[in-house]
Amino acid sequence: MRILGIDPGYAIMGYGIIDKEGSRISLAGYGAITTDKDTPMPDRLKIVYSELMDIIAEYQPDEVSIEELYFNTNATTAIHVGEARGVALLACSNSGLPIFEYTPLQIKMTLTGNGRAEKKQIQLMVQRLLALDSIPRPDDAADAVAAAICHSHCGEAQKRFFRMK
Amino acid sequence: MRILGIDPGYAIMGYGIIDKEGSRISLAGYGAITTDKDTPMPDRLKIVYSELMDIIAEYQPDEVSIEELYFNTNATTAIHVGEARGVALLACSNSGLPIFEYTPLQIKMTLTGNGRAEKKQIQLMVQRLLALDSIPRPDDAADAVAAAICHSHCGEAQKRFFRMK
Repeated sequence: MRILGIDPGYAIMGYGIIDKEGSRISLAGYGAITTDKDTPMPDRLKIVYSELMDIIAEYQPDEVSIEELYFNTNATTAIHVGEARGVALLACSNSGLPIFEYTPLQIKMTLTGNGRAEKKQIQLMVQRLLALDSIPRPDDAADAVAAAICHSHCGEAQKRFFRMK
Repeated sequence: MRILGIDPGYAIMGYGIIDKEGSRISLAGYGAITTDKDTPMPDRLKIVYSELMDIIAEYQPDEVSIEELYFNTNATTAIHVGEARGVALLACSNSGLPIFEYTPLQIKMTLTGNGRAEKKQIQLMVQRLLALDSIPRPDDAADAVAAAICHSHCGEAQKRFFRMK
């Protein structure tokens, strides 16, 4: 089974694709969709949607794992990240892919056993679990791979709890 | 010139279409795209996108006017409204439409001359300015028509200040 992990954002949207066979996982690809701050927001959203559709067409994932967003402070940023997340969800939904959602806490717990793990610890576990020579860059791509790994640990029976409602 | 006004939301997205000829405006259509709370969010976004594309195809607007969102309190709601707003912007952007953005204050000032006007006052001005028998329902549709009227008052030279960046 192939899982597409997504770390939502409008300036940088990270993505990572992993393959799961039995209990083994391997990295199939990763990267980031970036948009320029001088580009009008509607055009940035168009770029995010269209590049994500290309990635889905290229890698043909079976399922999608995306981080659930929390904002305590800046609601204006929340709106814009929400806009980018919305077009990412639309691309997956229009491609007929089931989408699963995990909180940052669940991702940290799954990868390190520690819900308060630092970003660096998560990244090192991503590297170790996939037997990589280095940590995927940028950070957003590593976060997306982490979301995909988190989903790969989820058994078929538990999946329904994480499917987006 | 035909203007499509949008009031973003994921449970209810209001829309209103007005025609401007010289200084005269008239209502061409209005309504609301609604999605059910029991429908998974990715499917709700798909419905919003696809219905908005149908509305654009039917009414063939020249320009879009959308309200700028502010949230002081609930950032989780902000994320979800942002998601719906993102797919609305994508539909307009994929249709090649220029998008203009107005704050609630600008819309209130333009329609009533009072930045602190109540919702009811705005609605009565929508009814009066378009010479309607009644206020468009639901409220979200009236808000969308108000956004369109606000844009119709904007001269060509001023428009660039409100074009989405």
